[in-house]
Amino acid sequence: MTYAIVRPDQTLAAALQQRIDTKTKPLGALGRLESLAKQIGLIQQTVAPELRRPHMLVFAGDHGAAKAGVSAYPQDVTWQMVENFLAGGAAINVFARQMGMDLSVVDAGVAHDFGTRPGLIDAKIAPGTANYLETPAMDAAQRDAAIARGRELARTLASQGCNVIGFGEMGIGNTAAASLLTHCLTCAELDVVIGRGTGLDDAGLARKRELLSRAVTRGGRLSEPLAALAEYGGFEIAMMAGAMLGGAEAGMLLLIDGFIVTSALLVAYSLAPAILDYCVFAHRSDEAGHRVQLAHLNVEPLVQLDLRLGEGTGAALVYPLVQAAVNFLNQMASFESAGVAGKA
Amino acid sequence: MTYAIVRPDQTLAAALQQRIDTKTKPLGALGRLESLAKQIGLIQQTVAPELRRPHMLVFAGDHGAAKAGVSAYPQDVTWQMVENFLAGGAAINVFARQMGMDLSVVDAGVAHDFGTRPGLIDAKIAPGTANYLETPAMDAAQRDAAIARGRELARTLASQGCNVIGFGEMGIGNTAAASLLTHCLTCAELDVVIGRGTGLDDAGLARKRELLSRAVTRGGRLSEPLAALAEYGGFEIAMMAGAMLGGAEAGMLLLIDGFIVTSALLVAYSLAPAILDYCVFAHRSDEAGHRVQLAHLNVEPLVQLDLRLGEGTGAALVYPLVQAAVNFLNQMASFESAGVAGKA
Repeated sequence: MTYAIVRPDQTLAAALQQRIDTKTKPLGALGRLESLAKQIGLIQQTVAPELRRPHMLVFAGDHGAAKAGVSAYPQDVTWQMVENFLAGGAAINVFARQMGMDLSVVDAGVAHDFGTRPGLIDAKIAPGTANYLETPAMDAAQRDAAIARGRELARTLASQGCNVIGFGEMGIGNTAAASLLTHCLTCAELDVVIGRGTGLDDAGLARKRELLSRAVTRGGRLSEPLAALAEYGGFEIAMMAGAMLGGAEAGMLLLIDGFIVTSALLVAYSLAPAILDYCVFAHRSDEAGHRVQLAHLNVEPLVQLDLRLGEGTGAALVYPLVQAAVNFLNQMASFESAGVAGKA
Repeated sequence: MTYAIVRPDQTLAAALQQRIDTKTKPLGALGRLESLAKQIGLIQQTVAPELRRPHMLVFAGDHGAAKAGVSAYPQDVTWQMVENFLAGGAAINVFARQMGMDLSVVDAGVAHDFGTRPGLIDAKIAPGTANYLETPAMDAAQRDAAIARGRELARTLASQGCNVIGFGEMGIGNTAAASLLTHCLTCAELDVVIGRGTGLDDAGLARKRELLSRAVTRGGRLSEPLAALAEYGGFEIAMMAGAMLGGAEAGMLLLIDGFIVTSALLVAYSLAPAILDYCVFAHRSDEAGHRVQLAHLNVEPLVQLDLRLGEGTGAALVYPLVQAAVNFLNQMASFESAGVAGKA
């Protein structure tokens, strides 16, 4: 499988910079918003970009290893939180509503039967992955199906006029999967990329470390992204990677949340490095390992708010900053149009 | 003059923390938003705070020292930018509109006759301050009038149902005034708190340093806040300090922008230290000296976006984060109400 992701044509960069520099402000005074405006202009190949129908996709899946005790919470919390999303009561609901983003919950592989529900996309590959302490989390067919389904989801959104996707996730045990993937796909040692997840105490953290070390002893440190994804991944992670690839192929802006979302991006990036040009990194999570991922990708997130909730909350929270970048580019007066003098 | 600013009663802190901790998220997982929610709840003395009629006040004033060459831009840019604000074309217009904040421009002392204009509050103390290289910038009566007028502005907003004020400013030469005030009211050496402002080159920066050093030689390093304000301040800075004091007296939330706004806060803080409990520090500006102010106040701003524009742009840009703090507190389900299990 190859992906039609290319770096945006840079020809327009000078015209975008010129438009930014003639706005009524000192050169460079809008800092990060200026580079963001330029990035979005290049993705959309216009000096007047627009953000249309922003959509938050929250991918949910269960992990076979959760029952072995890699999380502070019982596995049932995955489906219970999906119900909370569908009822509108979770943090991501609150923030997506506030920011004017649509929200869909994607059942990529939750161990629960939800039936047909408004706001829920049934894309279930299986009711949870296998336990990677004993066997690969998924087989190649499941992995490929998850990626393909994610890619299709992004294309469907694009066909509906959406050009910004926010990525979020829910899955008890998925920080553990993200740690294993990060260990495989970066040069970081395993212990460095294992954190407390939803709030393990010291004993829980030690247990998580021991379990994940056993998993790597069994499955190996696989540097090939698709192999690592099948061995340790979650269905929600695989489907996110597919949706990121599909989104970049469609020229959409991708809002990358925290540690787990970035683990999906590590897979997508290994398959198609040009995807980075389509990504906005929302925040630096408090979860150990996220900074390793960001350093590996050589990117700087927009904010650091000590978040470690997941669900896409960081991506939703920074969306107004992304809008602000587009808005200043389109709405601010120039020195000439406003009759303001330049430097003395 | 004394100000009726007291630390909010902390009795409610436990109930607020309890409400935050029962939300469907791991303990502490919303990071900075959690402390923000608690702060706003304490200010408003309720576990269900509300942000009402948020208002951005942009204070404009001219500086006698501008003609001596402390800025990269000519003094006329102050009134030209006020015209730009009134026409809706400046960065702060774009961001305040996006964030749903009302905006008023306050002529605290611009060297220009605007006449009566919608959106402009005529609070002119004088057409610009005197040149502090030769004489104090203002006399005691002007300073007190500016503070009193600012206090009255905040009270008027409060009486109209507003409970959040964003602070912004415009005034060619006002980073220089802010540097002098910061030197007077913190323990930092003068050179450390002088920056490039709107974009001085190396020669311009050297000239600014030399001029400000001469100013301090003439006027002295005054540690008494009102004396320092009269000696070096701008009318927009004095009026902002008054509006901050009046806002805190009325129990309003104060959104503090960058270097110049924080110089006004240094004055207000010296007069009434409890004002800090009412402040949200928006961003860490790229202007040298802002980090000195923040360290002096022992506060951590919400974001760092390499902004150095002023106008209140940083305060407007973080407003959605402040709203998000209130929204999660009011709108998220609890573990009990959502039927989600707690830690295993």
